[in-house]
Amino acid sequence: MAGNPLVEIMNPGSVAIVGASNNIMKMGTVLLTSILRGNYPGKIYPIHPREETVFGLKTYRKAADLPEAPDLAVLVIPTRAVPQVLGELGERGVRKAIIISGGFSEVGEEGGELEKEIVAVARRYGIRFIGPNCIGVINTRGKLNTTFFPYLHEPGGIGIASQSGTYITQVISYLAKYQIRYSQAISVGNSVDIDLVDCLEYLGEDPETKAIALYIEAIRRGREFLEAAREVTRKKPVVALYVGGTEAGARSSLSHTGALSGPDAIYEGALRQSGIIRVETVEELYDWSWALATQPPARGRNIVVLSHSGGPTTSMADACERWGLRVPILRDDLQEKVREFIAPTASPRNPIDLTFSMDLSILADKIPRVLLADPEVDGMVIHGITLPPSLKGMRELAPNRDEVPFQDMEKIVASMLTELIEFPRIFGKPILCSAFWGEKDHAVVFLQSRGIPCFPAPERAVKAMAALCQYGEIREKMHNG
Amino acid sequence: MAGNPLVEIMNPGSVAIVGASNNIMKMGTVLLTSILRGNYPGKIYPIHPREETVFGLKTYRKAADLPEAPDLAVLVIPTRAVPQVLGELGERGVRKAIIISGGFSEVGEEGGELEKEIVAVARRYGIRFIGPNCIGVINTRGKLNTTFFPYLHEPGGIGIASQSGTYITQVISYLAKYQIRYSQAISVGNSVDIDLVDCLEYLGEDPETKAIALYIEAIRRGREFLEAAREVTRKKPVVALYVGGTEAGARSSLSHTGALSGPDAIYEGALRQSGIIRVETVEELYDWSWALATQPPARGRNIVVLSHSGGPTTSMADACERWGLRVPILRDDLQEKVREFIAPTASPRNPIDLTFSMDLSILADKIPRVLLADPEVDGMVIHGITLPPSLKGMRELAPNRDEVPFQDMEKIVASMLTELIEFPRIFGKPILCSAFWGEKDHAVVFLQSRGIPCFPAPERAVKAMAALCQYGEIREKMHNG
Repeated sequence: MAGNPLVEIMNPGSVAIVGASNNIMKMGTVLLTSILRGNYPGKIYPIHPREETVFGLKTYRKAADLPEAPDLAVLVIPTRAVPQVLGELGERGVRKAIIISGGFSEVGEEGGELEKEIVAVARRYGIRFIGPNCIGVINTRGKLNTTFFPYLHEPGGIGIASQSGTYITQVISYLAKYQIRYSQAISVGNSVDIDLVDCLEYLGEDPETKAIALYIEAIRRGREFLEAAREVTRKKPVVALYVGGTEAGARSSLSHTGALSGPDAIYEGALRQSGIIRVETVEELYDWSWALATQPPARGRNIVVLSHSGGPTTSMADACERWGLRVPILRDDLQEKVREFIAPTASPRNPIDLTFSMDLSILADKIPRVLLADPEVDGMVIHGITLPPSLKGMRELAPNRDEVPFQDMEKIVASMLTELIEFPRIFGKPILCSAFWGEKDHAVVFLQSRGIPCFPAPERAVKAMAALCQYGEIREKMHNG
Repeated sequence: MAGNPLVEIMNPGSVAIVGASNNIMKMGTVLLTSILRGNYPGKIYPIHPREETVFGLKTYRKAADLPEAPDLAVLVIPTRAVPQVLGELGERGVRKAIIISGGFSEVGEEGGELEKEIVAVARRYGIRFIGPNCIGVINTRGKLNTTFFPYLHEPGGIGIASQSGTYITQVISYLAKYQIRYSQAISVGNSVDIDLVDCLEYLGEDPETKAIALYIEAIRRGREFLEAAREVTRKKPVVALYVGGTEAGARSSLSHTGALSGPDAIYEGALRQSGIIRVETVEELYDWSWALATQPPARGRNIVVLSHSGGPTTSMADACERWGLRVPILRDDLQEKVREFIAPTASPRNPIDLTFSMDLSILADKIPRVLLADPEVDGMVIHGITLPPSLKGMRELAPNRDEVPFQDMEKIVASMLTELIEFPRIFGKPILCSAFWGEKDHAVVFLQSRGIPCFPAPERAVKAMAALCQYGEIREKMHNG
């Protein structure tokens, strides 16, 4: 880790940005607005040949005019200007850079030549850089965001490194909806200097990063990647989406980041050997790393399925078996304990279907508490912990409104769910939820914002639980093997 | 269809509801609020032994007091009371009923006996009924909703029949978020009288239903089901989620709806033979029926992948090949046409990655128009048609706000997307989109509310496109075979 260039890139005391102006239609300007909206606490030095100020910030004509050598420079300028500007920055003492500009090896031979020029300039000055053809980085606790969109929700535990800028930026509002939270995010672009291996090592050491997500089009340093992965996966889970394994995927990778990808089966085997959990879609990349960053791994595959809805109960039970989990019939004594809380028409066997019940505490507290304490239960998936806003609409129609107990939903939610959010820590077992109401539901938001993933569909909770089981097995094997 | 009891159940001129009161914590009351909030235009007769009025509606002590025989009765009363009340309703002339109450064959022998009593009573009076142990029905155009939650968005083309009430009701706000719209929805519960076969026939004939979605725990009348399916799938697509095929799924089905399900392989084969498209998750059930209800089937598997983001471009291309679609390299003359609209650094081959571009009309109009006109293109998936609200935030930071062209997003969106929404009809080819911004994005909402599905993740658009290809093939086979 000593000497990992990402330490300074992700935590700079000052940032120069070349290519921002007062014209909001320019990419560089948009990135500057992200830095500003993120409340970056360090110094910001815009560099622009003509502007006096940019968004109110004192602006410098060229690198040589800067009052100090900034810790980091961000370049968002025309392709052909990059080598010269990078040289000027190096001359002024800059040693870390993010090169956002595209048009290099990903577009063909001429761009490849320019890319070689950048490498030569960087070497001359000892500059380490991310890119080119990337979207920059986000450090949620350090409040640095050089990307296209503001990150406005809380810091979290997912460290993501991606060969696609979109998959760390365009998704931010999607992730915010579920309270899926980054620790740090890195868009590596063409990975000419800093690459996924550096990211893996950096995020592996970052104490706030609890799970690592990778979007991979091609791995350039195969051996180093596998060695780093084997080391990191002993300590924390890593999930990866690899998309370069089909003919069309490989063709697209090449024109996207100039990456030469390899056959799917080779990546599949390499990822598995190094303890990385492979996902099939970008939604799974976020879903699974969300679960892995917030929940303990499962110590076995015996899962309890709990809901007050028969449909989700049945489809979660079915999905468990299809995806390699067990839904064991509970021992008689456990069934007896569950029976205390449920209607005589409900089933305590597992899956447990409470049938219609307005008492949220059974679903969200009493039954999980009893079952998670039992050594035969390795984890729980629960569908339907909700207090949807439509209850308020019912209340408005009611003749005797005061009889409707939904005046203060936040209070109801807090009183019933406060203990559930501690169960994963207390029992050392994972809980994953699902509910259809999303960010409009008081209970769902309460859970999500306190580290209990609540997925928008029941099978997604089951699939993520399978990932928690998989990581439990990987960790055991890594430590014994 | 003549004599299908669902015709009257879904379109009644008057409804009696037994079990609603002024206590909002009662299930029957909640269902009444749904009927009221849906603006049901027919007469509503609450029946209650003590109340004078319920939610302001004149209330009757018993069925015999009703001023007319209502077209439909909805029963939400304790299990043991159902046979007698059903008899009283029959005596008063009721011939159609929805029995919401549970506690019958799904809970064991005693409940099974009660269920037989219901059947006997129904037979005595010639009553046809849905349930017991169901959540009722929604007819979006007829404005009848007897379920637990209000349906507040527009009518659409998906007809759904489900052995789980949750999958037609708890999901309503989830579906509303994407503008996924029902024509009609039927929760069949224990399916003692009216079952999935009746639903399939009814929805098959309903002109507003463009695609049918089924949630299946078990099929009771196998031969009739397959015959009905073969007939219906010639005319419109049918997708099904079957969850009774694993041991845990079967166990859960039995206690949920008393259904005896069968081995997965047998259902798999039967569904395929009858032209039904099988999904794996409930999300896919909605995704695919959404695509099938709004888009023409694809006539072949040659798909164009288009985006201004390299990551989604690559993962959609990769997903296409993994899921059996082709992403052919475009002919040189087509590439030339595309090249007119894109940056020199962008790739026109297919997948097409525009790279960074602020001109939405290229992505959403110019390129789709050229490519859909070509006989070698069977359909398109497009990621990134968005005008996210964060652009407004940028504008607020800008020193010269008037330079920021996002004052009137609705107008921008309408001017650029008005033609795209006509392309599927004009060219007879499907378009599916994806974007991460969801219901906060002006462009996404514009597309979704005008019949272009816009999924929250790129691979979901690809999977749904595969379903459109599959239905294209099924229909051809059904008509030639």
